[in-house]
Amino acid sequence: MSLNNFITVKNAIKIIENRKFSFSTEYIPLEKSNRRILSENIEVLLNVPPFSRSAMDGYAVRAIDTSNSLPTNPTYLEVVDEIGAGENSKITLKPFETVKIATGAPMPSGSDAVIMHENTEESGSEIKIIEKVERHQDMALTGEDLKKGEVILKKGQILNPNQLALIASAGYSRINVVKKPVVNVINTGNELVDPTTNLEPGMIINSNKYALKGLVEDSLSVPIMSTCADDLEIMVKQLKSCLKECDVIITTGGTAISKGDIVVDAVEELGEILIHGVSIKPGKPFGFGIIDKKPVFMLSGYPVAAAVQFDIFVRDKLLNMQRINRKIELLNVKAGSDVRSAPGKYNVIRAWLNGETVTPIRTKAGINKSITQSNCYILTDENTGKVQKGEICQVLPYKNLNIC
Amino acid sequence: MSLNNFITVKNAIKIIENRKFSFSTEYIPLEKSNRRILSENIEVLLNVPPFSRSAMDGYAVRAIDTSNSLPTNPTYLEVVDEIGAGENSKITLKPFETVKIATGAPMPSGSDAVIMHENTEESGSEIKIIEKVERHQDMALTGEDLKKGEVILKKGQILNPNQLALIASAGYSRINVVKKPVVNVINTGNELVDPTTNLEPGMIINSNKYALKGLVEDSLSVPIMSTCADDLEIMVKQLKSCLKECDVIITTGGTAISKGDIVVDAVEELGEILIHGVSIKPGKPFGFGIIDKKPVFMLSGYPVAAAVQFDIFVRDKLLNMQRINRKIELLNVKAGSDVRSAPGKYNVIRAWLNGETVTPIRTKAGINKSITQSNCYILTDENTGKVQKGEICQVLPYKNLNIC
Repeated sequence: MSLNNFITVKNAIKIIENRKFSFSTEYIPLEKSNRRILSENIEVLLNVPPFSRSAMDGYAVRAIDTSNSLPTNPTYLEVVDEIGAGENSKITLKPFETVKIATGAPMPSGSDAVIMHENTEESGSEIKIIEKVERHQDMALTGEDLKKGEVILKKGQILNPNQLALIASAGYSRINVVKKPVVNVINTGNELVDPTTNLEPGMIINSNKYALKGLVEDSLSVPIMSTCADDLEIMVKQLKSCLKECDVIITTGGTAISKGDIVVDAVEELGEILIHGVSIKPGKPFGFGIIDKKPVFMLSGYPVAAAVQFDIFVRDKLLNMQRINRKIELLNVKAGSDVRSAPGKYNVIRAWLNGETVTPIRTKAGINKSITQSNCYILTDENTGKVQKGEICQVLPYKNLNIC
Repeated sequence: MSLNNFITVKNAIKIIENRKFSFSTEYIPLEKSNRRILSENIEVLLNVPPFSRSAMDGYAVRAIDTSNSLPTNPTYLEVVDEIGAGENSKITLKPFETVKIATGAPMPSGSDAVIMHENTEESGSEIKIIEKVERHQDMALTGEDLKKGEVILKKGQILNPNQLALIASAGYSRINVVKKPVVNVINTGNELVDPTTNLEPGMIINSNKYALKGLVEDSLSVPIMSTCADDLEIMVKQLKSCLKECDVIITTGGTAISKGDIVVDAVEELGEILIHGVSIKPGKPFGFGIIDKKPVFMLSGYPVAAAVQFDIFVRDKLLNMQRINRKIELLNVKAGSDVRSAPGKYNVIRAWLNGETVTPIRTKAGINKSITQSNCYILTDENTGKVQKGEICQVLPYKNLNIC
């Protein structure tokens, strides 16, 4: 497939979005579920508290008995029992009776409020009350925190520590979460070597390996890294073998004509190419295909382009495959200097956002350092062309890309 | 130590900040360094590119030879050699000479620019140029991306995937990062049980275990979870034994007088208590001590209070021990309803931030669900008291607590 049917970024994203891929779930211990994606609704399994109980050391009363209590008109209640924490009373309160009760102890039958010990006065078998006690005062009702059967968390969210605590309180020690997709990343290119201080002529350090491993991890997925020579036959073989162990394939390199398109050709041989060539800058040779119902994202070998392609086309699909749907928030910010933006293309321009203004970083295409010297993208679409200093442009801060 | 010397939140934070704790580093493979904290400055080990090279297929020229080129006044250069990628030329360009060059090939001596193939016209052993070629046009200079000896990243930052790629390009396959602190979390309380649907009277599901394990993980630290009975002797023994394997201890429960302060007593027996009791609501029985130069954070048993204590006193100290210093961003937001705030206390009130207004969640102290039904804290200090609807209050969105 030749690289001349450029489609727009919008259409490319639509094509990728429209393809749905299966995902699986796993049933894991709750204590291993931090930052995992919940795949079941959490229905409370027991009332919390399991019984109405006192929230104070004091006396369980019938609130109605105290309704006229005043310093000038005290109420006297007879103490008919005493309940410690972990104990139970078989008594049912009759009018003007009370039971001495410890914090956390179950409320006796007939009682509906607690008065704190320090607000009463004991005299013999009676206590004296000089204030009105409100119904349900200083007590916790059965199921007040969590009600049995109530749904407290819905599937499809990334769990945080406080939610885990709530799920524990709801009675769960294991839960169903989305299984992390396994992503096989294949860096292609005869010129790629591991980091070294002694680079042979024509060789390039394979920095994409480190970027993509981390980007896949940050997308809540499990990376498996490999490299491949620029050879169609070897590439076909390697694709076949890694399809057995993974849910997604990402490649770098071998998508531009200059290198013979070997990755695109190999994917076409085994499956289907849906996209090859997008009117995006940088990153136009981006490709997307499907083999055995599994998505294959074909990124550029140039690190700057590969990073943009991952950010625009890959990350949110990886999340979406795990049932995370989100809309990345863009900002409207004034340009601090002119923004060169090629008309007819979707431009992804590295820039520095500083309070109220955003300034593009002037750099050549090959400068990888630009990725770490910028903190946002300026995005301009096919109809924008050059943006003048002072005009408003759309900005995507890098921190909005991350999910956490 | 009795629970009556309440200090302010500000003073408590100062006491914790002033104590410095040692940290160690480890030398690990770069591919395992995503989201780790860099503990060395990264100095570039080799020039990138390692030699000046052509960025296009074309001709290497001396820019000065073309300075008067025009369609009406073409320049003619003699082609004296040809360099493919991975090849080298021994030629030094003399005036009005040129060398045919492939993308990526090293620039021949004497040349300082490249003109693209399509902008030239070949005729015999000469090429015709009808435009001025700028110095350094369409070529990359030695060290243009990364210069040998240049410091590109400073220690003390959390590494992201793009930074890893840059470090690889700088020649590193292993780097020094901060070793993650090991945090032993001891949940104390005879009443604590693992999640169950069949809670015996007086028993409580140990939800703090799940919250704190996740909170420690999210603080880039390694949790070791344990429980302990409400027994001074056992507690002392357990503290002693876990000190051998950890850098930090966090306890829950056993800090309030009602339970006999056993945790505080145990810590005092083995080390030093610096804080016990802070004028914060919720969470006043918070304690902080030191044993064997290791910090001990004593949190409440009540999950709602423990979560607040972690957020206000613990998280940033764990990060600071790893050389991460940050200032959490607070917002000034209009109160959507009256905010009850106890005067004389630092109040941490769970609330819902919705665009321009923030509304406190009305809830009792024991309601754990409130943690997940809110998205921010309203913070009021000792002098604030009640905040009226429409007044501005300080808001800490939960998402600002996380580091990522």
